[in-house]
Amino acid sequence: MQTELFAQLQATHPLVVNYANFVTPAFVANGLNALGASPIMTLAEEEADQLLTPANALVINLGTINHTDMPLVLALATAAAAHHKPIVLDPVAVGATSYRAEAAAKLLNDYPISVIRGNAGEIAFLAGVAANAKGIDAGDATLAPAELAQRCAQKYHCTVVVSGKVDVIASGNNLATVYNETPLLPAVVGSGDLLSSIIGAYAGLTQDFFDAAVIGVVTLGVAGERAAIDLESTQGGSFASRLLDVLATLDVEQLNSLARYEEARRAE
Amino acid sequence: MQTELFAQLQATHPLVVNYANFVTPAFVANGLNALGASPIMTLAEEEADQLLTPANALVINLGTINHTDMPLVLALATAAAAHHKPIVLDPVAVGATSYRAEAAAKLLNDYPISVIRGNAGEIAFLAGVAANAKGIDAGDATLAPAELAQRCAQKYHCTVVVSGKVDVIASGNNLATVYNETPLLPAVVGSGDLLSSIIGAYAGLTQDFFDAAVIGVVTLGVAGERAAIDLESTQGGSFASRLLDVLATLDVEQLNSLARYEEARRAE
Amino acid sequence: MQTELFAQLQATHPLVVNYANFVTPAFVANGLNALGASPIMTLAEEEADQLLTPANALVINLGTINHTDMPLVLALATAAAAHHKPIVLDPVAVGATSYRAEAAAKLLNDYPISVIRGNAGEIAFLAGVAANAKGIDAGDATLAPAELAQRCAQKYHCTVVVSGKVDVIASGNNLATVYNETPLLPAVVGSGDLLSSIIGAYAGLTQDFFDAAVIGVVTLGVAGERAAIDLESTQGGSFASRLLDVLATLDVEQLNSLARYEEARRAE
Repeated sequence: MQTELFAQLQATHPLVVNYANFVTPAFVANGLNALGASPIMTLAEEEADQLLTPANALVINLGTINHTDMPLVLALATAAAAHHKPIVLDPVAVGATSYRAEAAAKLLNDYPISVIRGNAGEIAFLAGVAANAKGIDAGDATLAPAELAQRCAQKYHCTVVVSGKVDVIASGNNLATVYNETPLLPAVVGSGDLLSSIIGAYAGLTQDFFDAAVIGVVTLGVAGERAAIDLESTQGGSFASRLLDVLATLDVEQLNSLARYEEARRAE
Repeated sequence: MQTELFAQLQATHPLVVNYANFVTPAFVANGLNALGASPIMTLAEEEADQLLTPANALVINLGTINHTDMPLVLALATAAAAHHKPIVLDPVAVGATSYRAEAAAKLLNDYPISVIRGNAGEIAFLAGVAANAKGIDAGDATLAPAELAQRCAQKYHCTVVVSGKVDVIASGNNLATVYNETPLLPAVVGSGDLLSSIIGAYAGLTQDFFDAAVIGVVTLGVAGERAAIDLESTQGGSFASRLLDVLATLDVEQLNSLARYEEARRAE
Repeated sequence: MQTELFAQLQATHPLVVNYANFVTPAFVANGLNALGASPIMTLAEEEADQLLTPANALVINLGTINHTDMPLVLALATAAAAHHKPIVLDPVAVGATSYRAEAAAKLLNDYPISVIRGNAGEIAFLAGVAANAKGIDAGDATLAPAELAQRCAQKYHCTVVVSGKVDVIASGNNLATVYNETPLLPAVVGSGDLLSSIIGAYAGLTQDFFDAAVIGVVTLGVAGERAAIDLESTQGGSFASRLLDVLATLDVEQLNSLARYEEARRAE
């Protein structure tokens, strides 16, 4: 795990441009801010190029995508591509409606997406594997997360993160499994959105998006475990506040000592 | 009170499609999620039919309605009607502007609204009774809540909930009064929005929307009272987090033992 | 400091119409509500006139301004001007993109803006002074805050608030410096947005917008210091909830005893 990316994030405050859904932008912005990144949300396509010029990364969240915003999303993706900034895609509930599926397909076909992060149901849908999702819930995919992540990564030539009780990150022949977890993270609406944006912050600091995804997942997993100490597994409301507190105190030593993961890198 | 609806909600996680205002969607989504329902927010009319097909209910909140979103709202209502899914209407500040009044009238005239939930000022306006509301505040209606609820229910042939210190639910000849309350619920912006969506979750599980409204009001009232324990009546910030914690631990025994209400059902 | 404005706010619950960004509206609404003001957010230009008729003030936040909303913003500003209600402008990240700069310029040129509130980078940009801002962060302006505030106030003939570790308020020949502060306020995304709206609530109660800005800044500064007691400087998540609790218990005695400021008024 490249913990120097964590030190670099805290030293340089990478600017993360977010096309956020309208449900959780405050939680995402506060989470990025607590960690030391610099978030900005925009709804104006006119400023896409000027925001992506200084930006380190773009995160596109499809949670409440619609036709009014689609030109903005494409302008942001175009600007990110032109300025060689990584794009993280969070395909919220992509399997639930053809509109979401088409929006995701358009982005995946026409733009250089660096990382896709979703739950098993969302990644299964993108990978073309049967799943049984409902609304924003994950559902049960018919393949194990590692296989889902690898298939999706191969199909779209990018890094893929499958979030769940165990998180899996795949890219080419690389595969990582992160075991840090707490039932309180999925209890908070927007914890997945925040993870995508944290991965974006790291992706803006390296050419290796697999590394960025691994440390991103470990960062939120370790912070989540620390925030869950002394809380019942039902205290999602209290947890959301504590998670922000913990993200603001995380350090390299904690990441190194508390991370629980396996990583396998193989030459392609 | 039909507490089996509570058990059913927790067992089946009803999917509630929300056209939410942009101020409180995170609070509403987290509240539904904590209770065990499955929330989804949308801004895309293209997905109205595909979301309402698996959905249990639609909740329309007029808090920040505008002409860009109106086609979406009508598409959602059309899809709900086509798929025989109940619609809950939250007419936020409906008496404050003719634009809101016209949006509410359009929905009430053209679509099968199952439940209307508002404060006394909002329900008085819809019922055609004088009130003195200001912004999103309730104002003072010239009729008692029970009469307001009954008049509004008769006018629109649906179930009506008047929220206040005491909550009243009316439908046809049925009338219920719920006494569970805490000053901390009105202290949190969005607690009314959440109540409407909780009622939506229950309404998606029964044909009897009066039952759904009664248990919805009791659910939030009991959860609010429990969350308020050990808090001062001014601690709205702390209360909001605790309310989410409590919603995640509520059980049938608590509902039965803590509910304070009167219910009168009469054949029509 | 005009503490009678505080008493008046709590007695009369001034109605503050907000064109809010979509990231922090819940925090702003809850903060205004906790303090005793009456917030309303709108996205419908059709209701601009009817909302500004009873309103005490309008607050325009450019955090996520876009071309879809621009007609709404202009309709709100037009209605505020027509009804002689003060307008507070929060020029979020105005120096980051020409789109934001043009939106701010249009408002400052064509409408009677009473108060501008921003960080040093934003005010430096509006004043035409070099700065080095990034995203929503303040950056380092080349002038001291007092000079920035005064130059900007002179240029736009209004009251200007520069937020930072020390807050400065300038208007004509009047200058105030407020020393109440905590690192936890800038740690919460939206604390600046809330300050602008609190100033709006006070501005709706007096013809003297310098007075309104001074007590607005003191109100949030004192509340912030009280909310920070017993918290680490990293606990931004916990602080956000406590700040709302504290805003609901603030009284004139606390403001008088805890305010730390200097104020110099000179005849023009």
